[in-house]
Amino acid sequence: MADTTCHMSISLDGFVAGPDQSREHPLGKRGRELHGWHLGDERANEADATAARRLLRPRGAYVMGRNMFGPIRGEWGESDWKGWWGDEPPYHHPVVVLTHHPRPPLEMAGGTTFHFVDETVERAVARAFGLAGGQDVRLGGGVSVVQACLREGLVDEMHVPVVPTILGAGERLFDNLDALRRAPYGYECVDFRPSARVAHVVLARVAR
Amino acid sequence: MADTTCHMSISLDGFVAGPDQSREHPLGKRGRELHGWHLGDERANEADATAARRLLRPRGAYVMGRNMFGPIRGEWGESDWKGWWGDEPPYHHPVVVLTHHPRPPLEMAGGTTFHFVDETVERAVARAFGLAGGQDVRLGGGVSVVQACLREGLVDEMHVPVVPTILGAGERLFDNLDALRRAPYGYECVDFRPSARVAHVVLARVAR
Repeated sequence: MADTTCHMSISLDGFVAGPDQSREHPLGKRGRELHGWHLGDERANEADATAARRLLRPRGAYVMGRNMFGPIRGEWGESDWKGWWGDEPPYHHPVVVLTHHPRPPLEMAGGTTFHFVDETVERAVARAFGLAGGQDVRLGGGVSVVQACLREGLVDEMHVPVVPTILGAGERLFDNLDALRRAPYGYECVDFRPSARVAHVVLARVAR
Repeated sequence: MADTTCHMSISLDGFVAGPDQSREHPLGKRGRELHGWHLGDERANEADATAARRLLRPRGAYVMGRNMFGPIRGEWGESDWKGWWGDEPPYHHPVVVLTHHPRPPLEMAGGTTFHFVDETVERAVARAFGLAGGQDVRLGGGVSVVQACLREGLVDEMHVPVVPTILGAGERLFDNLDALRRAPYGYECVDFRPSARVAHVVLARVAR
């Protein structure tokens, strides 16, 4: 059966992005530091390359939150915002964007189509599997989507690269997850493969 | 000049202890999982041994919170509580215990004396240096003491072993630290030495 995986790099203090997201800072201030391991940090090594292959492996579809798609809030208005990634986004498959402000599907070069939906994460994930042609589905970010998926039991595997820096503020991955304590499953570390600068942790859902 | 260091093992979701501290669970439920690396986990390796030597290196004094000293809250009452560690605690030097309920100093076998004080962390750390005979001072836990020390700029070095498990609840190390964002210094990773199962991170305070 196809799996769902999310990949969320976090700082030592638990943040996936810095504060003040903007067009200049898609990941918030200093947020890019969390992604050096797959975006050209010269200290990256084979463990990072393995993790990057895991991150970039082919999927069938993607579910992301609206803030990951762009910095625009509220109504789309006159905006012609088409995502952060230019004319040919790196996904090459359907991407379901959760938003309270649906708009028509947006077909991009290279096989990526953004579908904007206002529905529960459960329905969005089901929709993604419907579009994925039997392949895996990637979930999130941002944190609110991932947290909702975790609360609803929709995440099979989590890849959490921990970067030893302190951002001091931003959006925290492991928050608002009290529901997980009452869930009939938990997460167990199935792979721990640190690089020279990043602790790559892979967690899998296990019954308990 | 002598330094201050704190050592705080955290879970992937940022907790230093599990919930429900009690006599049976000094570190809260499942909290001991965070300390396997220096308490007999068979997967521990040389990187853990190096970190354990760092943890156990000789100091001159220690500042800890009352909840680290014991599970008793409020007035000490008839309690003859003398700490978690038996007649001969592993410190062998003065330990300053922050509490709103001072009591006379408690001299134990092996050179450890507990001094119970109701004062600011700044004064407690100054007192510890006064007792330390020119040697380093260890700070914390619990988290409230460490956070107070971080806010007041009293921590020179932090050793943060990150253990890839999810506790789901407990006390979080990196919280209540907004003041750090306005501080004239930050923390930089100066040593990153993962073992087979733990990412040992050492941070040092740097001007910025």
